[in-house]
Amino acid sequence: MQPLNIGLIGCGNVGGGLVELVERHRERVERRTGLSPRISKVLVRDRAKARRVDPALVTTDPDEFFGGDGVVVELIGGVEPARSYVLRALESRRNVVTANKALLAACGDEIFRRAHDSGVSVGFEASVCGAIPIVRVLGSGLIANRIESLVGIVNGTCNFVLTQMTERGLAREEAIEEARKRGLTEADPSLDLSGVDAAQKLLILTQLAFGERPSEADVHVRGIEDLDREDIASAAEFGYVIRHVVQAPELRVEPVFLPPSHPLAGVRDEYNAVVVRGDAAGEMIFTGKGAGPLPTAGAVLSDILDVAARPACGFLAEHRPATRVETASPFYLRFPILDRPGVIGLISTALGNHGVSISRASATLTSTPGRGNVKLLVHGTSTSRLDRAVAEIGRLPVLAGRPVVIRIL
Amino acid sequence: MQPLNIGLIGCGNVGGGLVELVERHRERVERRTGLSPRISKVLVRDRAKARRVDPALVTTDPDEFFGGDGVVVELIGGVEPARSYVLRALESRRNVVTANKALLAACGDEIFRRAHDSGVSVGFEASVCGAIPIVRVLGSGLIANRIESLVGIVNGTCNFVLTQMTERGLAREEAIEEARKRGLTEADPSLDLSGVDAAQKLLILTQLAFGERPSEADVHVRGIEDLDREDIASAAEFGYVIRHVVQAPELRVEPVFLPPSHPLAGVRDEYNAVVVRGDAAGEMIFTGKGAGPLPTAGAVLSDILDVAARPACGFLAEHRPATRVETASPFYLRFPILDRPGVIGLISTALGNHGVSISRASATLTSTPGRGNVKLLVHGTSTSRLDRAVAEIGRLPVLAGRPVVIRIL
Repeated sequence: MQPLNIGLIGCGNVGGGLVELVERHRERVERRTGLSPRISKVLVRDRAKARRVDPALVTTDPDEFFGGDGVVVELIGGVEPARSYVLRALESRRNVVTANKALLAACGDEIFRRAHDSGVSVGFEASVCGAIPIVRVLGSGLIANRIESLVGIVNGTCNFVLTQMTERGLAREEAIEEARKRGLTEADPSLDLSGVDAAQKLLILTQLAFGERPSEADVHVRGIEDLDREDIASAAEFGYVIRHVVQAPELRVEPVFLPPSHPLAGVRDEYNAVVVRGDAAGEMIFTGKGAGPLPTAGAVLSDILDVAARPACGFLAEHRPATRVETASPFYLRFPILDRPGVIGLISTALGNHGVSISRASATLTSTPGRGNVKLLVHGTSTSRLDRAVAEIGRLPVLAGRPVVIRIL
Repeated sequence: MQPLNIGLIGCGNVGGGLVELVERHRERVERRTGLSPRISKVLVRDRAKARRVDPALVTTDPDEFFGGDGVVVELIGGVEPARSYVLRALESRRNVVTANKALLAACGDEIFRRAHDSGVSVGFEASVCGAIPIVRVLGSGLIANRIESLVGIVNGTCNFVLTQMTERGLAREEAIEEARKRGLTEADPSLDLSGVDAAQKLLILTQLAFGERPSEADVHVRGIEDLDREDIASAAEFGYVIRHVVQAPELRVEPVFLPPSHPLAGVRDEYNAVVVRGDAAGEMIFTGKGAGPLPTAGAVLSDILDVAARPACGFLAEHRPATRVETASPFYLRFPILDRPGVIGLISTALGNHGVSISRASATLTSTPGRGNVKLLVHGTSTSRLDRAVAEIGRLPVLAGRPVVIRIL
């Protein structure tokens, strides 16, 4: 049996889960791989936090930590000092496993190049869709496919909030509070709700699926912060389900309306799912829990075993700059209006001026006297054309608030 | 660039697909892996059939074929001569890739042991669920999970036939004919319809998920041959969807009723899906096309690249004999009856004698005068208890045909 030392940086929820899984599955892993994993050193900022491990293994001194050997597992999150630690590990020719999507989104290029130059590997299965082995699937299982499109629900918090708003009629803040109670949010949920977390994951998925390395600025990012109960109700009224999705090669992160038959429409609560279309395999769907200490720790442990068994990093060569794709879609539009005669006529004329045509329309009054909403479905149009039409409508004297625009997939 | 020779045994639909994909994706694969795959020799029985490859590469002489080098890809199906060819390749220390589930179900033990002894690998992603990289997922991605259960739709033909019977009201023979027209059946569809094909795949999945090596005799196999329109209609009547599924660790292959909320209930036509529950990751669902030349060839090519990059076979050590699990389920029962007073009473008394209790009942008449059907849902019971009850009912003088028993998941 070959011992496999694991140097752990950070010992919070995921780190604690890893410590537990290494113990729980040691015998299985030994039988199956011939490797005997053990936590050999733990680097933390605050000694009191590393409660699940033998205190003799814990240090707060990076130099002592990097004096050890084996795989380095980075679980502290954020860019610094994670970046410096990872680069230091790679330079000393140690394989690295990380769950840190922010780090990879910001410095993936530098990290993979350093790994390549040192002849070691970086495992990052846990950085996207915790329980779904999507990195392995895209990086190896589907290598004989040219990926044509990728659409996914990759933020469990957003999906939980939208599911609760849709199915239980909760207001957004109530749904966020419910997510917090169930441990599905960070202390500050704004990275989730703003779409930034999903965008970082989309960057990683895009690299794997398309061999492109876009930057964060290439991604069109919209969260679920401006959705209210009215829009959730409209989705149902028009026969759709609302979900927050990432799309490649379009590099879009946004809430969309899905027909109930869409494979992502049935993905509920904190689940994640990725729909991939390949030229050889056709459409594939991968579904599982997006986060949580044990699912994520499981992905980390599978990476640890994988990099230990396969020392070469084959992820660098293919990358080229991103090409952003503009596709036409139907859209849902909601215009908060002053209740005056002829409002629908004004709005539809403005849309028509830009070649955007309406497929369904409805007007409702709100509880505020003299105010209402005009809700429209429009036929397939480009975003740029729609943007111009919506800007023109925004200048009409009948508007009573910001228009809401949601793509229909 | 490192050349990667591929010796191909068999050049039918999947072999032709592989030849096409190797050409189509050479540049991508080279960039991504540093390996340059090329078909170097092709062994066929009938020279005229290998139309997509350079005739200079084709031979009908096994000795000439095995004089070459590189990965050996076996795509002829069946046990012999596939077994002899695969063993010969492994003995000469060549990696092997196969899509042959019948071979692995019958001789997997011998083949993996030979690979282990020779220090080479056997790739078999293409043997189960063509487009879904389920072998990779179970073998590597989920290695940090103890798999608790696996339920799957793994035969696209059965699923297509049941979908068409359910959604278009086709008779079984009409649906089979429709599948044949779309190229979804073998010339002889009986291996699909009898459940034998699904059982072979279940054996492979069980080995991967549970590290057990059951034999074909351990599997309870039932196909869809005895289902008629009446049973399809009953599924809808009672609020269920009928699907043909495999289950582990129960080692069952059978048609079942699924509630519409079950993740397999929405899997339609020729799609396959596998639901896996792991102790760390929770429930995961993998969906994709189950067969077809290109999806299968894509899986073969990913295996070729994988065995070339990772020469050790880590699949052997864990296996131990299978333990069959008996679980209680609710069931749907249909008894064709002679329309006489008191029939339902006789049947429910017989069920009660064996401790099987009814949750719903309905009786209908058929177009044959004096004949009818009693349809029942019964509460959770073991198969052995239910079998005894159904045997007692079978001896009643009111039975007019064979009872139909379908598990509800």
